[in-house]
Amino acid sequence: MGASGYVGGELLRILLFHPKVGVTCATSRRYAGDYLHHVHPNLRGITDLKFMEQKPEDMVDRCDLVFSALPHGSAVKAIPYYVERGMKVIDLSADFRLKNPEDYQKWYGYEHPHPNLIERFVYGLPELHREEIKNSSLVACPGCMAIASILALAPLVKGNIIEKERIVVDVKIGSSGAGVTPSPATHHANRFGVVRPYKPVGHRHTAEIEQELNSIGESKVKVAMSSHAVNMVRGILSTCHTFTLRPLAIPDLWKLYRGSYQKEPFIRLVRDRKGLYKLPDPKIVIGTNYCDVGFEVDEHVNRVVAFSAIDNLVRGAAGTAVQNMNIMLGIDEKTGLESPGLYPV
Amino acid sequence: MGASGYVGGELLRILLFHPKVGVTCATSRRYAGDYLHHVHPNLRGITDLKFMEQKPEDMVDRCDLVFSALPHGSAVKAIPYYVERGMKVIDLSADFRLKNPEDYQKWYGYEHPHPNLIERFVYGLPELHREEIKNSSLVACPGCMAIASILALAPLVKGNIIEKERIVVDVKIGSSGAGVTPSPATHHANRFGVVRPYKPVGHRHTAEIEQELNSIGESKVKVAMSSHAVNMVRGILSTCHTFTLRPLAIPDLWKLYRGSYQKEPFIRLVRDRKGLYKLPDPKIVIGTNYCDVGFEVDEHVNRVVAFSAIDNLVRGAAGTAVQNMNIMLGIDEKTGLESPGLYPV
Amino acid sequence: MGASGYVGGELLRILLFHPKVGVTCATSRRYAGDYLHHVHPNLRGITDLKFMEQKPEDMVDRCDLVFSALPHGSAVKAIPYYVERGMKVIDLSADFRLKNPEDYQKWYGYEHPHPNLIERFVYGLPELHREEIKNSSLVACPGCMAIASILALAPLVKGNIIEKERIVVDVKIGSSGAGVTPSPATHHANRFGVVRPYKPVGHRHTAEIEQELNSIGESKVKVAMSSHAVNMVRGILSTCHTFTLRPLAIPDLWKLYRGSYQKEPFIRLVRDRKGLYKLPDPKIVIGTNYCDVGFEVDEHVNRVVAFSAIDNLVRGAAGTAVQNMNIMLGIDEKTGLESPGLYPV
Amino acid sequence: MGASGYVGGELLRILLFHPKVGVTCATSRRYAGDYLHHVHPNLRGITDLKFMEQKPEDMVDRCDLVFSALPHGSAVKAIPYYVERGMKVIDLSADFRLKNPEDYQKWYGYEHPHPNLIERFVYGLPELHREEIKNSSLVACPGCMAIASILALAPLVKGNIIEKERIVVDVKIGSSGAGVTPSPATHHANRFGVVRPYKPVGHRHTAEIEQELNSIGESKVKVAMSSHAVNMVRGILSTCHTFTLRPLAIPDLWKLYRGSYQKEPFIRLVRDRKGLYKLPDPKIVIGTNYCDVGFEVDEHVNRVVAFSAIDNLVRGAAGTAVQNMNIMLGIDEKTGLESPGLYPV
Repeated sequence: MGASGYVGGELLRILLFHPKVGVTCATSRRYAGDYLHHVHPNLRGITDLKFMEQKPEDMVDRCDLVFSALPHGSAVKAIPYYVERGMKVIDLSADFRLKNPEDYQKWYGYEHPHPNLIERFVYGLPELHREEIKNSSLVACPGCMAIASILALAPLVKGNIIEKERIVVDVKIGSSGAGVTPSPATHHANRFGVVRPYKPVGHRHTAEIEQELNSIGESKVKVAMSSHAVNMVRGILSTCHTFTLRPLAIPDLWKLYRGSYQKEPFIRLVRDRKGLYKLPDPKIVIGTNYCDVGFEVDEHVNRVVAFSAIDNLVRGAAGTAVQNMNIMLGIDEKTGLESPGLYPV
Repeated sequence: MGASGYVGGELLRILLFHPKVGVTCATSRRYAGDYLHHVHPNLRGITDLKFMEQKPEDMVDRCDLVFSALPHGSAVKAIPYYVERGMKVIDLSADFRLKNPEDYQKWYGYEHPHPNLIERFVYGLPELHREEIKNSSLVACPGCMAIASILALAPLVKGNIIEKERIVVDVKIGSSGAGVTPSPATHHANRFGVVRPYKPVGHRHTAEIEQELNSIGESKVKVAMSSHAVNMVRGILSTCHTFTLRPLAIPDLWKLYRGSYQKEPFIRLVRDRKGLYKLPDPKIVIGTNYCDVGFEVDEHVNRVVAFSAIDNLVRGAAGTAVQNMNIMLGIDEKTGLESPGLYPV
Repeated sequence: MGASGYVGGELLRILLFHPKVGVTCATSRRYAGDYLHHVHPNLRGITDLKFMEQKPEDMVDRCDLVFSALPHGSAVKAIPYYVERGMKVIDLSADFRLKNPEDYQKWYGYEHPHPNLIERFVYGLPELHREEIKNSSLVACPGCMAIASILALAPLVKGNIIEKERIVVDVKIGSSGAGVTPSPATHHANRFGVVRPYKPVGHRHTAEIEQELNSIGESKVKVAMSSHAVNMVRGILSTCHTFTLRPLAIPDLWKLYRGSYQKEPFIRLVRDRKGLYKLPDPKIVIGTNYCDVGFEVDEHVNRVVAFSAIDNLVRGAAGTAVQNMNIMLGIDEKTGLESPGLYPV
Repeated sequence: MGASGYVGGELLRILLFHPKVGVTCATSRRYAGDYLHHVHPNLRGITDLKFMEQKPEDMVDRCDLVFSALPHGSAVKAIPYYVERGMKVIDLSADFRLKNPEDYQKWYGYEHPHPNLIERFVYGLPELHREEIKNSSLVACPGCMAIASILALAPLVKGNIIEKERIVVDVKIGSSGAGVTPSPATHHANRFGVVRPYKPVGHRHTAEIEQELNSIGESKVKVAMSSHAVNMVRGILSTCHTFTLRPLAIPDLWKLYRGSYQKEPFIRLVRDRKGLYKLPDPKIVIGTNYCDVGFEVDEHVNRVVAFSAIDNLVRGAAGTAVQNMNIMLGIDEKTGLESPGLYPV
């Protein structure tokens, strides 16, 4: 559902080549009847599928699992129908991410119409909730900046080595994060070459970052988040500045991060001594499901800077969604997601 | 051989995921002993292979087929050893592309040391030479701009409908075409935002474009080629302006182009009535082996403008090389090359 | 009039620092009442002027000269009022550029409502019409691609050395040429990194290029024009491919171009033997009123390639408009326009 | 001296149009004898000046004031000669910025050869040291990131309202900051589209930021600085995350920032309620001497985020240098520096 946006396009791209599932329908109110490739030009010659109207009864007949790439507020209206009929649902909006129903009012400005459904959804970050995902049929995929920031910070929070209320998350994101709808903010002549502080405080992903980090540490965190639009299409770099409770050295950090991630198929620890790519850079993960995570120690101020880089449309959305699907269906988690990315691009 | 450049990196990326072949060695004089991912950061976590020195005897033992991504002038020295030992060779340099030995002096400034070897190499453009490739063990892959331009022009030349000495080929190319070696010309602050006419006349690919077009038409063509560096990393758009001998309409062109390409797995005809992507654009083929070809008729001056868009490192080099390998080995031509590309990117 | 667009903004930027004129009003229907800098953020701290509604009577009182940056179709409705009242008018739309009233139907799809006014407007390209501009109070500024292409081609046409019906004009332009209105075509994620053939045939500027070149040569020209959107905000490179009637050498071209332009304050001949900037590149003229013109000879096919680079918003619009104003007012032509541009940018 | 780099080029661009001074010589070891415009192509047609060797005696004869754009380590060797002869010197390297001679060893890895000269140089940030600059003939211009960060933070430090050891400075910078020398890091194909954490800890400008902030606040600050390379040529955005000692509101910040800067000719406070450019963005200051400063309050964590945007080559180097010159010479501080910048660019 909602297959005509950028995230919908990425889901289709991945699923059309997935060896274990088939795409039976792709809905779009606006483009119903059009070929997919009119909207997603990379799919030209790949499929003859057309967009269709969202007809719930039809979809129940034709699908075992629904991905919803509808915007928040719309997803929460469409999804209960499928839940009631026992279908598997993977939602990419924010509508089922936050566990506390009151948080929807606070961060998204609406009262949640189905608070009882919330607890049935698992927060779909495999690195934190793999077992729950495996046993669930309802998954709420995390926000793109949340994925990057949680994965960078989790080992530090888990290790109880940082000041929990002095966590600065400084995010840089490409223009695809704004979706497909043109606006003055995304107009090429206005958007090209910017470093625009577009959400300096109050970013909604703060809520889920704190929710998830609070679930793994001993004490409560507070996250000071600011996001910037930069001159690229895809990619997020999350720079997480933290102050350590005691002096730390690089080997300590290797231990923490390896301890958390060494078996993770989609996390690469990137912290070399030299080279252009000794730390994470979104340029290197474009088109992939990897989250590259790195870190550095600042002895001058007892700081640890943790970096994570993702493709906001893949690891930040469609890729993680498919990873969740694989886990739910008992398929090898990497299926359909093994692309190594292009270099240079 | 020559695996540390951008084309070498793309070959490795494709071959490491190719289900029917294995990579047994990757040579680089400069990086021998280093992990591949130190040079090709997208391969981090994908392979533990290291670069090795080029040791011909070793390679003969370990390989059935050699790709050479050495620069022209070096390839011609390294390759005969393998030819003599009966290995399959796919060369990505210019050293065996031109059939007339004298052309090397004219266009590349050196006397060809092995003129007798030239005729044993097939010009590796499957759309023109598939049968010869199938029966050969030596292939010279075309130049990137040549691939794009030949594929755009071939149906027009074959159809004998254009003035053969008034063919203008205006090429726009990204910075990866310049290779990995930094220079003032490729320095980001100098190179960003340019539309730089970097080879306004005398481009070397002119020679192979004329050679190939001459092999399919009735009379001799002359190509007026100019190339421009534009602000992107990957991609070529070749805009081919031709003047028609008689007025033509769009259906005539559909007939010509469909006649040439309708069974081709890696050519997509892109000429819609509307939409942002109604004509070829390199943005849409980044990371793919597609050559998107389109055309337009200018009634004002009896002109046909033919467009082709490729990824210079894939369709323009490593992808076509693997396509040639598949054909030589009798494997399905699309194997390892099915990626649809990313949108947007 | 029409001061809230990109061209309007550039006019304001230049005029606010012009030592001989003052800006008394800037109109915008949409932003009336707003500070200029809310729309043109570079003017923050420069002026406290606000946009006002277009009130013709008021303007007659307050202004001696009106610049119209209204779109075509609107300009032709607004301007007659001021003409009738004897004001000087410099129009930046297409509404008075074409001398043949029937051309408006053909190229712009409307019947010209004031054909009698057309001949009173001078085509405002100083290099071709300086004396007429000096003696006129009504000027129609040329289109941006027309300026670049005419200036590149005029010496060749004047010299009667090229085939007049085999002139290929291949234009590359930045996104600011599309104006301020967001659309899917200008959406950063869609527009970034493209080489999009957006007007492969039938570009409207063809009409004025032919009109002007016909006025200087002995025989009639036909122009085969195609335009491409490339990944930058400002700038045009016009690559003009021409076939010569007889073999020519570089000194012949120097003679032609110097003969036409050596006293021109805003044309620089750029054709060095070496260096990164040996030929025109829009990167070098961003923010300036220069048109850089260069050329190359292709002995292989008796071709001359002429290049011209301009900033589409300055030399292609606001700068030429002010140059015209200076000429009309008897002010030194360079006044307010001497900025050398930034390097690198 | 050192006139062939990007900063040298900007100095020449500004000084060649400065109404009160003349450029008598521009030195470059590498390009001696070449026209300036061979290196700085924007100066073509502007000047016939050539680079010359640095001949100290000559320069003493021909100049009253020397700008040194030599790299650190070289400047400190060249400058004493001119100081001894009583010339005015404005140095753009780091060699005289730090007041504590030991800091050169710590941050730059060399022992300062002329520690006695250090105290004679004023730290050339007019907003902090205008009176001293006026009375001095020796000025050390600040580093580009230091200028941006100090100007963003100074009012907060002066106001004693933030935690002094929890100051995070997250900088984003364009490629021109890396200078003119090509390297793999600046190679377009490698550098395009990055968000590269290139100096995550230990950036040298930390030293001067702390030095200057310590000189204005009551207690000692510690700065936690990280810098990122982003995809643009010019510009710096410094995002300064600070934690306040007590809850603050926007009017409190307006009071602090206005108190510090309201008479400053080159600081614009940018903090609107709406609009694309409601906070500083380097895109808007390209080519200008402005430092745009803005701020936001985060009630969630008692944070103030301060932003500053500059053009690293103008306000971050050549522009501030000329501003210092104007102050030293008793000329109106804005002379030669009034360009409002281009929009869009």
